[in-house]
Amino acid sequence: MRLFDVSVRLSETTPTFPGNPPFRCEPVKRTARGDSANVTALHLGTHTGTHVDAPRHFFDAGPGVDALSLDVLVGPARVVEIPGPRRGIGAQDFAAVDLSGDTRVLLKTGNSALWTSGEFQPDFAFLDESGARALLAYGVRLVGIDYLSIEQFRKPGAPVHHLLLERGVVIVEGLNLGAVPAGTYDMYCLPLDIAGADGAPARVVLRELS
Amino acid sequence: MRLFDVSVRLSETTPTFPGNPPFRCEPVKRTARGDSANVTALHLGTHTGTHVDAPRHFFDAGPGVDALSLDVLVGPARVVEIPGPRRGIGAQDFAAVDLSGDTRVLLKTGNSALWTSGEFQPDFAFLDESGARALLAYGVRLVGIDYLSIEQFRKPGAPVHHLLLERGVVIVEGLNLGAVPAGTYDMYCLPLDIAGADGAPARVVLRELS
Repeated sequence: MRLFDVSVRLSETTPTFPGNPPFRCEPVKRTARGDSANVTALHLGTHTGTHVDAPRHFFDAGPGVDALSLDVLVGPARVVEIPGPRRGIGAQDFAAVDLSGDTRVLLKTGNSALWTSGEFQPDFAFLDESGARALLAYGVRLVGIDYLSIEQFRKPGAPVHHLLLERGVVIVEGLNLGAVPAGTYDMYCLPLDIAGADGAPARVVLRELS
Repeated sequence: MRLFDVSVRLSETTPTFPGNPPFRCEPVKRTARGDSANVTALHLGTHTGTHVDAPRHFFDAGPGVDALSLDVLVGPARVVEIPGPRRGIGAQDFAAVDLSGDTRVLLKTGNSALWTSGEFQPDFAFLDESGARALLAYGVRLVGIDYLSIEQFRKPGAPVHHLLLERGVVIVEGLNLGAVPAGTYDMYCLPLDIAGADGAPARVVLRELS
């Protein structure tokens, strides 16, 4: 069964959401300098590249990324394609797709093409409040999107993050779904297990179902 | 099917191999300070916690972690239990186990108990050169072990790393296999995809076979 890597590669040119730490590498040991091996220090943020938001991203008393269950992070995931120009994705976009029984939903939008730009692009497709409520009504436990935030850029109060995270729904941001056809896959979304953190970088793969 | 998380949790008390960057968190945004969300900067090394060694760890011209194939990192893995005191694991330890057909081998030793100590423990079980040659003869493509190095601590010349990495065998270090019975599992070893890096932190899960 084919595997799709839906993570973005981390480098010093990977775009980062404004105000978040960019990815940076620093040589610690180098064989070229006479060291026995190559070792590198990594500097990045909890929301850099492909990553997971834990409820603690917005709620100090909410679970950290170390408390997210593998039973939510791993399992069948539905890739839903949202065609057309980048914009708010609302309840009407889910009217024609039956998501009953879908625990994990990944939104494939025109955003996936934005990764070819080395600069952060604020004009990305996002989930709006009606869309978030529709997914909650379906009982979805994990929602992913193919750029650096699920929320409209600079939306006051971040209502979509609040709606999802206060109900313990895991948000996966920074996916690249460009190569993945719509459909259902077996997802392995594996964030680094960081004690008490508000989020964590993750590698995410989708496996075709047999 | 049950999932085993065989990664270690990252915190500022997670032991690190001497000379490697420890794990450190730094607040960037905090709702308690009036920010709209919590965001944290992460500082760690390519070989901190559970991680993968790429050939570039020892060979400047070797593949980086971004060039490691998911076809090696994901698939059936054999957990082999090495009982007894911590020591070198050699060819004789594999004489009684038939590893033909095993592409991925994870060595479960007494090391898994060392994680309860917050200090680095240099007296860990390791693979010796005869053991590495035996695994190579079986055609193994990935070898994992349950502490921070597959090699004897301070072994001059690091022959086991050289033997494995110069043949493109992926080394997974810093596993915790304490809760996993010996046997074959479906492994998802997902390192962060870092451009050109000598290694990368990884989350690793094992799924019971159906």
